[in-house]
Amino acid sequence: MSRLEQQLAFSRELDKLKSVLRRSQLMDASRHENSAEHSWHLASLAILMKEYAAEPVDLTHVLKMLLVHDVVEIDAGDTFAYDKVNVASQQEREEKAADRLFGLLPKEQGHELRSLWEEFDARQTPESKYANALDRLQPLMQNFYSGGMSWKKHGVTREQVMERMEAVRIGMPQVWPTVLKFIDDACAAGMVKTTSSSR
Amino acid sequence: MSRLEQQLAFSRELDKLKSVLRRSQLMDASRHENSAEHSWHLASLAILMKEYAAEPVDLTHVLKMLLVHDVVEIDAGDTFAYDKVNVASQQEREEKAADRLFGLLPKEQGHELRSLWEEFDARQTPESKYANALDRLQPLMQNFYSGGMSWKKHGVTREQVMERMEAVRIGMPQVWPTVLKFIDDACAAGMVKTTSSSR
Repeated sequence: MSRLEQQLAFSRELDKLKSVLRRSQLMDASRHENSAEHSWHLASLAILMKEYAAEPVDLTHVLKMLLVHDVVEIDAGDTFAYDKVNVASQQEREEKAADRLFGLLPKEQGHELRSLWEEFDARQTPESKYANALDRLQPLMQNFYSGGMSWKKHGVTREQVMERMEAVRIGMPQVWPTVLKFIDDACAAGMVKTTSSSR
Repeated sequence: MSRLEQQLAFSRELDKLKSVLRRSQLMDASRHENSAEHSWHLASLAILMKEYAAEPVDLTHVLKMLLVHDVVEIDAGDTFAYDKVNVASQQEREEKAADRLFGLLPKEQGHELRSLWEEFDARQTPESKYANALDRLQPLMQNFYSGGMSWKKHGVTREQVMERMEAVRIGMPQVWPTVLKFIDDACAAGMVKTTSSSR
């Protein structure tokens, strides 16, 4: 295959991310969100929220990272953050997916995309901390505005949401008070279980 | 409203682009594609196909442009390229949409996004020529691999597809022979009407 054929073959595979459903709903609660449109939402937010990043970030790098951060789900599926069994096997499933998917591309491009995905998951660089913060904030808003359907269905507690949102405190500290407000309001509305009511 | 509140209000609006359906199908023909996941697909391709851009391009600028290029459809809807009546009213509907949507943001951010959208539509800069080429190539592949459902449904002719694909010839000339091959194959498979059969 020529370089172009490899790139177009990868583009065909990318289409499948549109059929990978996340647990969260669209804000109008009409259906589950898929991982492709979720990635678009995050990348769009990254353009607008850069001023809140904890450290200066290279926007191009952030955008690339967010655009590819979920591509492995084409093979590995979306892993619900609060599902302990699937979270345990997640790494192995995703490594295998990365081998196959990024392996479709010309070598140096596959390598670049794989590095971006690994960087996102490692959460060590300023760019990946910011990207991860966006990847927590957006689903918080999805869950909140859809009436907390996903939280309620899975009996998610305030403690779990707080732990999950830690990435926002790290990557976008100025946004943290707003996150706390969302969580407080979600608890008050009965979307998220408070510790006392879950006992 | 604070800056952050304005940005989060815009983020809420962005969610609606996930419910704007395009005429094209997913490649597995399971459903129509929406404009949010379409934008993600284009931005992801932009990372990989940069080497084919007719002129050197600033990738960050291309990515921003592709991420926002369809946002006005939240209010104005997707306009089918071959629908002459709706194409005529498209500009007015989209201008109004741009006023409302980009007006939700802090002034300088709204202005930046609006400029990106206008630049995309004007197709004058190297970045917008490349972005428009991607915006033609990806639906060609969507239509082809989904079996040409959208082409067949609307009786689209080879001449119309050739005209539509002109943006690829301009923005990614090296990819043009591949586009011609897709069109030839689509005609041979009866997905697109050839001039002789449409008479």
